[in-house]
Parts: sequence; C-alpha cells; structure tokens
Amino acid sequence: MKLESTSEHVNQNLLNIQYAVRGPIVTRAAQIEKELEEVQALVACPQLLSSPDIPDDVKARARELLADCTKGSVGAYSPSQGLLVVRRRAAQYLSTRDGVPAYPEQIYLGSGASDLIKAVLSLFGGDVDGKPPAVMIPIPQYPVFSGTLSELGIQQAHYYLDEAQGWALMADELERSWTEASKGSAVRALVVINPGNPTGQVLTRENMEEIIKFAHRRRLFLLADEVYQENIVSKPFLSFKKVMHEMGAPYPSMELASFITASKGWAAECGARAGLVEIPRLTETARRAFEATRAVAQCPNLLGQCALDCVMKPPAPGEPSYEQFARELATVRRTLCERTATAHKKLNSIPTFSCNPIDASMFAFPRFSVPSRAAAAARAHGMTPDEFYCLRLLEETGVCVVPGSGFGQAEGTLHFRTTILHPREEFNYMMEQIANFHVKFLKEYEDERSEG
Amino acid sequence: MKLESTSEHVNQNLLNIQYAVRGPIVTRAAQIEKELEEVQALVACPQLLSSPDIPDDVKARARELLADCTKGSVGAYSPSQGLLVVRRRAAQYLSTRDGVPAYPEQIYLGSGASDLIKAVLSLFGGDVDGKPPAVMIPIPQYPVFSGTLSELGIQQAHYYLDEAQGWALMADELERSWTEASKGSAVRALVVINPGNPTGQVLTRENMEEIIKFAHRRRLFLLADEVYQENIVSKPFLSFKKVMHEMGAPYPSMELASFITASKGWAAECGARAGLVEIPRLTETARRAFEATRAVAQCPNLLGQCALDCVMKPPAPGEPSYEQFARELATVRRTLCERTATAHKKLNSIPTFSCNPIDASMFAFPRFSVPSRAAAAARAHGMTPDEFYCLRLLEETGVCVVPGSGFGQAEGTLHFRTTILHPREEFNYMMEQIANFHVKFLKEYEDERSEG
Repeated sequence: MKLESTSEHVNQNLLNIQYAVRGPIVTRAAQIEKELEEVQALVACPQLLSSPDIPDDVKARARELLADCTKGSVGAYSPSQGLLVVRRRAAQYLSTRDGVPAYPEQIYLGSGASDLIKAVLSLFGGDVDGKPPAVMIPIPQYPVFSGTLSELGIQQAHYYLDEAQGWALMADELERSWTEASKGSAVRALVVINPGNPTGQVLTRENMEEIIKFAHRRRLFLLADEVYQENIVSKPFLSFKKVMHEMGAPYPSMELASFITASKGWAAECGARAGLVEIPRLTETARRAFEATRAVAQCPNLLGQCALDCVMKPPAPGEPSYEQFARELATVRRTLCERTATAHKKLNSIPTFSCNPIDASMFAFPRFSVPSRAAAAARAHGMTPDEFYCLRLLEETGVCVVPGSGFGQAEGTLHFRTTILHPREEFNYMMEQIANFHVKFLKEYEDERSEG
Repeated sequence: MKLESTSEHVNQNLLNIQYAVRGPIVTRAAQIEKELEEVQALVACPQLLSSPDIPDDVKARARELLADCTKGSVGAYSPSQGLLVVRRRAAQYLSTRDGVPAYPEQIYLGSGASDLIKAVLSLFGGDVDGKPPAVMIPIPQYPVFSGTLSELGIQQAHYYLDEAQGWALMADELERSWTEASKGSAVRALVVINPGNPTGQVLTRENMEEIIKFAHRRRLFLLADEVYQENIVSKPFLSFKKVMHEMGAPYPSMELASFITASKGWAAECGARAGLVEIPRLTETARRAFEATRAVAQCPNLLGQCALDCVMKPPAPGEPSYEQFARELATVRRTLCERTATAHKKLNSIPTFSCNPIDASMFAFPRFSVPSRAAAAARAHGMTPDEFYCLRLLEETGVCVVPGSGFGQAEGTLHFRTTILHPREEFNYMMEQIANFHVKFLKEYEDERSEG
C-alpha cells in the first residue's frame, strides 16, 4: 500500500490558484513610521510606559488600547470583530473621509485586507438555482482575487480595463462581461480595485457612478478594494460609499464592502497583517454567515490591530509626535510624486514601451513588445513571452519584476509590474538596467530573425 | 427592486458553522512571559536596542530575528511559509522533543493553529470518485474542527471518546465510525486532539499506536492537534511523530500534520496569533496545493512569528533572562497542577457531577444531570438542557462556562467546559458558586416535579 496517497485526491480548487506576486517581490517601500512602532512596543511591553524616552501621546494611546484588551493585555484574544476602540477610531476616520456616518458595528478588523476579501467572497460560494456562482473581476487585477476565487470554487467573470483610455473601466465592457458570464452562471458580485493595482489609475467620479448604476441594475454586491486610497499622487480620494451617498436613492442602500489595510499608505506596515472592511449593509442572514466565518478565525492579531489604530488616527498637530510624523509623511508623499512621474517618463522612453500616467499605488505596469523570435524562444522553454522576458531580466540584471500574465492582460499584449518606491539612486539604476536590457534583448532576437 | 438581495443566496456552508467558544469565554490564563514581551517590543521598535534596561540575550535574539526580516524590519512581509530563522528554531525544538530529525522546509508558520488547521483541511475539499469527502473528528471536539469542516463543505464523521474510560480513544469506535461514514462518503483524514480539548486527557502510547495502525490501514491523513503539549501535568508529552517513528516501518512514512501554537503552553500569547504546523510528508501535488493557499494568505504577522520564536527556544540556563523565565514557568506549572487536582476533586463532590482526572489542557469538562422538568423547561425556551443550565448559571452567579453541546457529547449526556487557570481565590469562589447553584437548581426542578 502506498501511503503517499492519503493526500492524492487533493482539492482541485487549491491547485487552480495562481499567485504571481508572492515570493521574491519586495513590496515594502516606505520607511516605518516611528510613532506606530513605539505604540506597538508599548502595548507589547507595558513596563516601557514608565520610560522617559517615549512621548506622552504615544503612552496615552497605548493605555487606551490596553484598556480595551481583555485583562489589559495584547496577549489575550480580542472579539473576532476586533477591539472596539480601534473600530471606533476607524468609524471616525471613515465618517470624516466621506462625510457620511460610519459605525463600529459595521467594521470588521482582519489579518490584512486579503483575509477579509476571502471572508467576503466566501459568502458567494454555493450554487444559485442550480447555477454555479461567479464574481466579476478586472483584468488586470491583483491576484488575491483570482487566487481566492479559485480556492473557493467560484468562477471568475473577467472585464477588461481599457489601457488606451488610461485603464478606465468602461460600462459597456461591464455589461458585456456580465452578459457572457450570466449564460452559464449566477453572477453575484463585482470587484473594483480603485486606485488600480497593478495599473495605478484612479477612477473618475463619472466612471464610479456608471459602475454603481451597473451594479445596481444587475443586483451585484460591490467589493471595493480601496487599499491604495492613501497612495494617490494629486487628487483627493473618492470612496464608493461617498459617491453612492452623493448619488442619492436608491444607491445608498446598495450592498458594499470596502477594504482598507495598514500595509499600504504612509504606514506600509505589511508585516503587521492588519486591515479592515466596512460593510454598511448586509442581509441578516449574510451577516450571520460572515460573522460565523470570522469566529472560526478566532481574532486578528492584537499588535496588528494596534498598528491599524495608529493608521486610523495619526498624530495630530500639537501632539508631541506630530512633527516627526508630518516630516515622514511629507517624505513619503514627495517620494511617491517623484517616482510616479519619473517612472512614467523613463518607461515611455524605452523602445516599444508604453506606460499610462500613474495616479496612485506604488507600481508601474508598462506595456512592451518583443520580437516574434523571442516569443518562440519563450514557447520553447514552456513559458509565456512575458515570463521568459522577466526571467531573463532577473538573471541578467538582478532586477525583479512580475510578469503581466500574473495579473491578467489583454490577449496579445505584454506587461510587467514593477514597484517604484525604491530610494532614488536605486530606482534610477533599475530604470537604466531595464532600458539597457530591453535594447539588448530586442537586438538579440531581431538579429536571430535576420539570420534565419 | 430589493437590493438587499445581492447577498440573499448566502453560502450555506458558512451558516452551518457552529462555534461555541468565541465570545465571552476568557481563555487567557497564564501571565505574559516577560522575555517574550521584550523581544516583541525590540523588534517592533529597534531603537530600544540601545536601552540599558533590556537584557543582552533579549537584544541578541531581536537582532537575529531582524536580520532575517526583509530590510531588517518587521514592517515588511515575510515569506508565506514564515521567517527561516523561526522555522529553524522550531525544527530544533521538534528534533529535541522527538529524537527524530525535523526540517525547516517542512514547517509552516500561521496566524495561530486555527489558520493552519483550515489550510490543511482545505486539501480534502472536493469529491473523490463522485463521493463527497469526510473527515473523522472526535466527540467531544474543539469547534475549530466542526466549524472549519462546515465552512469547507466537508462532512464530519464523528467518533466518540469513551468517558467511562477517562476519555480514551477506542480503536473499535474508530472502525465503527469509518465504516458508517464510508457508506456514503470518501473518508480522507482523521483528527486526533491530544491532549484533549475540552476533555483534558492524554492518550497512552498503546492507544496512540492503535490509532496510527487504524489510520494506516484505512489510508487516512492524520491531523494531530497537539497544541496543549506544554500543558501536561505529570507525564512527558509523546507526539504522534515520535510514536510513528518508534513503531518503525511502514508507519514513519505516513502522512501527518502536527499543530503547535503560541496561544497555549506557558506563553499563552493568544493575541499574537502565532502557530505552526509540521508536515513531514506530503505528495508533491498536495504540497503545491498547500503552498498555494498559504500564498494567498500572504504571510503570518511578523510580531507573532517573533513571539513563536521565543516559545520555540525559551531562555536557557546561564542567559540573563533565564532566572525570571524559570520562576514564571514554575508558577504556571504549579498553578496548573493545583487547579487540575482541585477542579477534579471539587467537581466530583457536587451531586450528579462526575469529572475524569484532568491530565492536561486548562479546562475541566464535567458531566452532570438535571431533573426531567429542567429539560422540559429548556425545550420550552428553545434551548438544549445544557444551554439552559449554563445560561441560568451565568445569570445567577456570573460564572461563564460553555455548554457541552458546543463540543458535542454522547446522546443523553450533559456537560460544560470551564477554564480552570484563574487565580486561586477566584477559582475557589467559582467552584463554590457552581456547587451552590447546582443544588438550588436541582431543588427548584425536583420541587416542581413533586408538585406536578
């Protein structure tokens, strides 16, 4: 008897997961914000509360957080939904942001946004009237969506962002995708990523209104991945919740889940695994189901919840930590502005490359092309042309980018995603390496063709 | 159009989740171990590394952990599998424990054991030759198993622990359960909880050997929930891995997943959400599936990984933190010994109560009975008798225990689970309250009967 076989019939859903960006990709870009570090240190080790080196506002916040912890310790479980003090602070943040009331009981903390995206998507697993469920996701998209849908056994209905229109989300493309998917499946929800990842665009208000009307007309639950809301270069951020409310009835009563994380924005505390979802409206049954799956996960880690608290209410003017925070925030914002502009300019100067203006996020997602001989060489290696290209780039220059096929891309196009928040010299060096490599790569495969 | 309906067809699997122990139950029992707190504070806020108040061994460990973090910061993502430095330390812990080699590449860190239990169980989602999958779990069991199986849409095959034999796990009962479940489903895996939760028994070596032989014969993947291994009162802990190896071929080549957590043992750092699973053997395909689902979860929180590191290698004799650690550890162990003995004695002194000796864990799970009038009153309130009883206990005494039906119990029996690691006076007060309440409760319903 071969005992290896006890796991032989493995869940096919897991094998269908594609997840391009885990592994060597360094998404960590901004410097850790010091006030947040200190709050984490204090709540982890409260005897530091007597240290003269810790500012008073940091101590006050740590005391407030500890007061909401069971037995005053981050070593205890919290409610599955998260500490009330943090959810209150998040409600305040959301109310101020949108000018629309937000409530702690409609906010759930999680181990990063990914954890909560999975929990919300899991609501839609299960056939409806004999039809398998489907969820609409953009192409390109961030693979947490495709990966999680695969894992849950939910079909993906793709809609394509329009690269020629600065990655706009066109209403007729939504309609096309819905119509096609509805033939064989029950389309349940629409995922919108705004600001875009990997594409870095920010939707216009008009575009958001079209999307909301479409979701309303087709009775779709709207998942708004808004995790890059603090990474926008030039315009103010508009949430889907705010736009729905400003559109007036019937839109404010639509079902919506909006995600925020401590891993992005100025904090960029990826390692804290802390995020939240606001779900203003949900049927009673769906809320019961959602809370059941949250309970099985016990609770999000407590120090992550404390980190999120700092993100929801950064130091205010007049507080001892404010000056340092403001200085660091300004640096992060200035870096983001510089890099998005430079990346856009430099990438567009490389032969065959085109890159839309980058409004937000911390990525560039340029399009490029390669000679047909290079595509053939990729096939001979059992790779897609962009995989082959990115692997060669890595091997020859040490520059690590993620092939566009990991995010999805229109048939016949090639892209890669690169982070852009490196220190300036490193960034410039990387851009130069990409440009030089590309010219050499073109020459290599064009020469081969002329020899052939 | 009623827009509430976008989430109306909610995933039935989520609604099937039962999770009795989340909520008001305080499982936090032991004092936070100071060295661990300091390590967390240091890695969160490295400028504390220059503080003269922090012992040198703590500083050395923090530096070692930070050296394995991307850019030297716990603010960055780690590999999905967890920091290598922590997995190496865990491999050393496991090798020493079992006298069998363990390898970092077979160890996966997670957000507590629950997270990893779900990931392993998800391997078995999916029909086999048209038969729905089933996993065997003990009754009583810890509801992370029943809850997760519900969520994944995997059937539960129950086997009953023998209360009359000190909650022993009888091989013929395993066989009965398997045979019955195999009629309509493909039984894929066997869950064993050792030490037991909520039952607190520790399996004998002979019993473990029988279980291993059964799993081998029936080609079942063995999930060993061994999270209470550091909470055993009197005997040394025996892992399933060690017993398999000592039995010799063919057993060492069986597939096994064994879970450890920072939430139990002397550390009891529930809020850190940190655990690990060792999976020594897995088919190539199953490992690919497992790693795919781990990648979608990004990575476990970094400060939790650091906490687990401290649990895997506590301060050693000669190190500056050792004395304090040893003192606290002795207190935790002494408290556990005292409470298990006292709980056993006191609970058995209450009329109708019986409670097996408690070898381990931090719970008592006594059996009790109530007059038939009380059972009728429960039904009239739409509750099971144990729910009704525990609710009355809470309302009348403030003592919060979890009804046995949340864990499963043999038909016609009643139990509750209570934690036992309270401070001594609080514990004695609680025992007294339970005893007084029970006598009053018996009298109330027996009187009614005599009146009836």
